[in-house]
Formats: sequence, C-alpha cells, structure tokens
Amino acid sequence: MCGTENQAATNGTTKHLSSPSSSTDVVLNLDHGDPTVYESYWKRIGEKCTVVIKGSELMSYISDVRKPCWFLEEKFESVIKRLHRLTGNAVVDDRYVVVGTGSTQLFQALLYAITTTDASLGGTGGGPDQLPVPVVCAAPYYSQYAEETDYLRSGLYKWAGDAYAFDKDGPYIEVVTSPNNPDGTTREAVVIHNGDQGKVLYDMAYYWPQYTPITRPADHDIMYFTFSKSTGHAGSRIGWALVKDEAIARKMTKFIELSSIGVSKDSQIRAAKIMEVICEDYQDFKHHQNSNHFFEYARKLMENRWKRLREVVARSNVFSLPKYSQEYCLFHGECTESYPAFAWLKCKEEGVEDCEKLLQEYKILGRGGKRFGSDPSYARVSILSREEVFQQFLERLEIIKGNTN
Amino acid sequence: MCGTENQAATNGTTKHLSSPSSSTDVVLNLDHGDPTVYESYWKRIGEKCTVVIKGSELMSYISDVRKPCWFLEEKFESVIKRLHRLTGNAVVDDRYVVVGTGSTQLFQALLYAITTTDASLGGTGGGPDQLPVPVVCAAPYYSQYAEETDYLRSGLYKWAGDAYAFDKDGPYIEVVTSPNNPDGTTREAVVIHNGDQGKVLYDMAYYWPQYTPITRPADHDIMYFTFSKSTGHAGSRIGWALVKDEAIARKMTKFIELSSIGVSKDSQIRAAKIMEVICEDYQDFKHHQNSNHFFEYARKLMENRWKRLREVVARSNVFSLPKYSQEYCLFHGECTESYPAFAWLKCKEEGVEDCEKLLQEYKILGRGGKRFGSDPSYARVSILSREEVFQQFLERLEIIKGNTN
Repeated sequence: MCGTENQAATNGTTKHLSSPSSSTDVVLNLDHGDPTVYESYWKRIGEKCTVVIKGSELMSYISDVRKPCWFLEEKFESVIKRLHRLTGNAVVDDRYVVVGTGSTQLFQALLYAITTTDASLGGTGGGPDQLPVPVVCAAPYYSQYAEETDYLRSGLYKWAGDAYAFDKDGPYIEVVTSPNNPDGTTREAVVIHNGDQGKVLYDMAYYWPQYTPITRPADHDIMYFTFSKSTGHAGSRIGWALVKDEAIARKMTKFIELSSIGVSKDSQIRAAKIMEVICEDYQDFKHHQNSNHFFEYARKLMENRWKRLREVVARSNVFSLPKYSQEYCLFHGECTESYPAFAWLKCKEEGVEDCEKLLQEYKILGRGGKRFGSDPSYARVSILSREEVFQQFLERLEIIKGNTN
Repeated sequence: MCGTENQAATNGTTKHLSSPSSSTDVVLNLDHGDPTVYESYWKRIGEKCTVVIKGSELMSYISDVRKPCWFLEEKFESVIKRLHRLTGNAVVDDRYVVVGTGSTQLFQALLYAITTTDASLGGTGGGPDQLPVPVVCAAPYYSQYAEETDYLRSGLYKWAGDAYAFDKDGPYIEVVTSPNNPDGTTREAVVIHNGDQGKVLYDMAYYWPQYTPITRPADHDIMYFTFSKSTGHAGSRIGWALVKDEAIARKMTKFIELSSIGVSKDSQIRAAKIMEVICEDYQDFKHHQNSNHFFEYARKLMENRWKRLREVVARSNVFSLPKYSQEYCLFHGECTESYPAFAWLKCKEEGVEDCEKLLQEYKILGRGGKRFGSDPSYARVSILSREEVFQQFLERLEIIKGNTN
C-alpha cells in the first residue's frame, strides 16, 4: 500500500435534479467496453503496425498438429509470451497457450474442459445423469457470465450466482475476475474449498499496467487474457489462456474445434504483429517511466480520464465512485493507482433507486447493477470510448448534479 | 440430365492385397477437408489479393448497430451478395446476412435460434421442462454434426441421427447438406413434414461451380456457406448464412454474441478482398468458359484430380466410387459433372470390412463410414490437399490393388 487514496464522493444535500431536456444530443452508448480510446495511439504509431497478408497465406485449418492447441500460430504464441515477460503480469513458463475467439470463447472452453465427462477426453465419465457443475463468481460479477453459462441449458454446468452465497458440497467452478469487471477491485477466490473439488478460473482481462499496478506475475493454474482490453483491438476477437495442465489445454482445444474449428489466423497474425511492435519499442528502454510507449501512453490516458471523471463526480451530489489504494507497480517502477476500464457509478441521490434509468434520461447508456448481481443503485459505464464521447459523457454527468440550497 | 455417366468400378476377382510395407513414407492426413489445393491459384494471382490492415483499423466490436447482425462488416456483406449473383448459386434478395466464425458456428447459432424458448428473443417460452428438439440428417451425414449438437448436452436440442429413420411427432430440425459431405450427392429434405413443426437448414458449403453443376439459385429460407470451401481460405474461419426471417437472424446474432462477441473483422475484410478480386476478374467476361479465372481454374483442377482418381480406382479390385450424373450448369453454360471435395471410397474387397483401417495400413488417414452414420466399408478421403500429397495418395491407392490371377 502506498500514498494516499483518491477521495471521490463529496458531501451535500440534493434537492432536485436538473432537467434532462437540456441535453438533446445523440445517445452515448457506454454499455459495452468498446476500447476505441486506443485508436489515436495506433494512428500515431502508423505503418509499422500494419499487417499485410497475401492471398495464398494462412489458408490451412492447421498450424501445428504436434501442439495440444493445433490451430495456434507459432508467431502468436511466442509474442504472447514475450509480452507477458515484458509487463511481468503473468508467469508463462511451463504453461500451455490456447488461443480463442476472444476470451468469451475461452471461458466456455474452460467450463467444458473442466466438466466434460467424455472418457475419451480424459473426463471422469460421470454419465448422462451427472448433475451440472455449479459456476459461481463473487458479486458484483461480469454481467455476461450468467448468460454465457446458461444460454444453451447445458447439462455439464449451470450458473449458480454469487460466490459469497455458495455453500454446496461437491464439484464447482469459481471465476475470479481480477481486476474485477465492473468495479475494478483486485480479487482472490472466496469459496471455502471442500477438498479438491473446486476449480478456479482467473479472468485477467484487465491485469495490464494501464489499468492497475502490476504487483506480481500472476501464477495461477488457469488464467485468460484478451487482445480487446490489452491493446484495444476488440474487432479481432482474440483471447488466450495460459494453463498448467496439458489435459485441460487439450479439452479446451476440443471445445474450440467443435465450436468453430479453430480461431482466425488472420487475427492471430495481426495480434502478433501489434504486440511485437509494443515489445520492440521497449527493447532498448529499460527505464521507461518517461517514455511514450504503449503502456505509459495508455496509463497516462486512463489517469487523465479518471482525474476528470473524479472531478465531475466530486462536484456531484448524485454519484459516487469506488476508491482504489495505491500499490507499487513492478512495471512502472513506482506507486500507481487503479484506473479501471469501467466506472462503477453509485447513485446516492435519495429517492433515485435506478442508476441506469437515471443515466438513460440523459441519454447515457450504462449497464445497471442488477445485471452484475448487485444493486440497481449502481451502473457500469465504459471509460474506453473515443475522446469526444468521453467528454460529452462528463458534460452530461455534470448536468445531473443536484441543486444544493 | 445430360451426357453419359462416369463409370468408376471395374470387375475382377481379388486374391490378396499387396503388402503395405512397400509404402514407408510419411502419413498422408486426408481426414480433414483442408483446402490447400487452392494455394497455387492464389500464389499466381499475387498482390491484388493482399489485404493490408493498419494498426488503428477495425478496433471496435461494432460494425453497424442498425443491422440485425451488428458485427457484420458492410464491405463483407456487399461482396457476399455480389459473389452469389455472379455464380447464380443462391438468392440474396430479401435475405439477412449473418456472419459466423466458420459455418460450424452458424450451424450452432441456427440450432439455438430455432429452439430457444427465451421469450425476450421471440422464443415460444416453453420453459425449462421443454424437451430438447431432435436434430436429424439423412445418412451418410457430415460426421461432426452429431458431436457439434451434443457436446454441451444442451437442453434445447439433441442429435437424433439418420433423417430417414425419424418418425417422431412434434418439432424437429433437419439438416440438408447439398452437395452432400461425405458423398457429393445433391439432396433435398427427406422427413415427411408433420404440419409446420419442422425446420430445414441447408448447408451449402459445396454448392459452388468447381464442385457441382449450378442448376438453379438456391432459394431456401435458411442457407449457409463457408469461405473455407468456396475459395479455400479455411484459416480465416469465415462463414455466412442467408436467412429470410429477421427474428432468426437476430437470434443467431444473439448466439454469436454470447459465444464469441462477434466474428473477426480482420477475416471479414480479408474475405471481402479476395471475393471482390474474383468478382472483378469476371466483370468484363460474360463468356468465361475458356477463362482461367477462379471458378474455371478450380473446376479444371477438380476435374483433373477426379479423372486421375477414377483411373486408379478403375484399375483397382478393392475400391469403388460413387457415380454422378451430368447436369447443365448455369454458371459454366455447359453440361458438367460433380467433382466433390471428398472421395467417398467403398471397399468392395471380400473380407475387408473396415475401409479406414485398410487405408491406414498404407499411411493414408481417411475417416471411416461409421462416423457418417454409414457402413465401415466406406471411408471419406479429402481431394483438396496440395498436389504432391494428392499424387502420393494416388500412388499408395494403386498399391492396394488386388492381385488378379
């Protein structure tokens, strides 16, 4: 723990809200965490990030049949490892890399890999009468996990809600999102283990130096990351998992084979190119605090946005924001605070119980707390939009300020 | 029906097979339909097919929120329609295009779209006690359909095998693969409809002028295609569906959102580029029979391979191949035969009951008939390998010829 904490909320008595009619602009869609904030950086970097693919390249389904993940491009795998070594955010030695169509596909591949009873895949062969394995995550949890677990009514696994409330015996899966989506907090597993029947998945989409201090290389058995949040390339749909157990890597691969016969090689190669440029930029700069390379640029940008957001919220009688402690970041070599990809806004206005609805009156689309297993007085709003959208968001937020007498 | 049919099998009494020990080369993996046969064409075409993507492009999740399929790239959609109009293989007017991570993802998106009971998505709200909808396909059927339907033990749908044997009341889904994988035949639905409770999915992966005569523009309510088999770019994992009903398109989109939050934009743009080059090549050539553009080149190549394959099989006392009738092809403007992507080899040798195993003795990996709901005396072998692999395949097949006294 270092330094002081940022104070977000202010005091004051709110009488009534300003009229939303003063804001008649277009709807600001901040419901998704669309990471277009990074576009300006990649524009500035220019041609060295351009990927060029000939018509005759990358035509085969197969990359390397000798690997557990046979559709994983060699170049992608090696750059992934290099990027983790550069940022120091995850242990890559003795890990299998499994590439996915975004981390969304990897989450589902993991549910399958852990619960399948197909004996030919190394499953326990529990048979068709086996009950679905409960999947839990501490609230507030990523809003899509419930639906991604349940939409096909799988007999293998079933969403079981808040991990804090979970007290069943038998096998279970706990997802730990750290830093957490929606609220940016650092997390650990919360279910009290009953023997070795629990498996923990670490969703580390936001464990990058622009969002949070890198306090140690994460060293869990099952971790996954995404291109969308690390460098901002959501349109490529690329994620990757680092897993210790070869059998898990093979079963995940089987899932991805059945789900989509592999993962776009065009996108794997593009991701490798972009992440390679980041690594090359740092090659000759051991002391990079003052550089303008990707992670410094991105951190300054996030820091700036959070500063402006906190200033607006500090003047507001309606909203408050979580506080984050400072920690020593091994990557930046200094104490840093968290600057999460989302603002987890709390509506403290008396009589206003639905934060999402209140924002909507001002044409701001956020995602209400109930979707995250939390209170409707919360809403999640993306901080990763383009600058003009973020600026408009702040201006509208300012209007919602209560009138203090 | 035009012309005469190609005769595949020959007569003769087989005494015993040549020893497999004469073939000690590497294993020929012809288990997958990996379409590397087309590489040489795209090499020759050169730079005009090269796709160039800047670091700052295609970063957003979103393509166009006004479309039912909000992650569909405009350029991809328009080129898809242009290619169908060029080849005349499918009606595109008044159809919604849904892009998928290969047609594999689209098949599953369709199962979900048809069976979901989620009322918020326009489902019938059958509730958790609703029985899974049976999914059938006439044998021999694509080997992966059973596993793709059942691997998650969905409560929404369930594989029910051969459509010819299906006689249940109530809702069902029939998949019609035409031309068929594995045996190259043209197909129609076979289940006798009981009211309007059946839905038919048309898998048209092979309905392109290099594989089969284009006798009419397919005009079904639900059809899907793939980049892998049309131009040979399997590594890009791009497929597309043409659907009449907007509600189906929206529910498919919801599935793909939950499964992978969209489809690689890099690959959509690359597919658009390559298919655009094909369309441009034909722009000024109405009479293209003698051209060397993609579909003529590919047809000649497939014709040549089938000619060589049939010659070897004609000398064989062990194998036979299906026969295909000639039809007038609207695209080529002449009578053409089918040159399927797979050889559906039948082992007619007495005492040899497992075709896959026999091929394996000669280090040829094919896929046995049982996997397709058929007889083990059949095996499917890919015709889409690189030339040197295909040539080796023929040479090994020749060795398996029985010794006739």
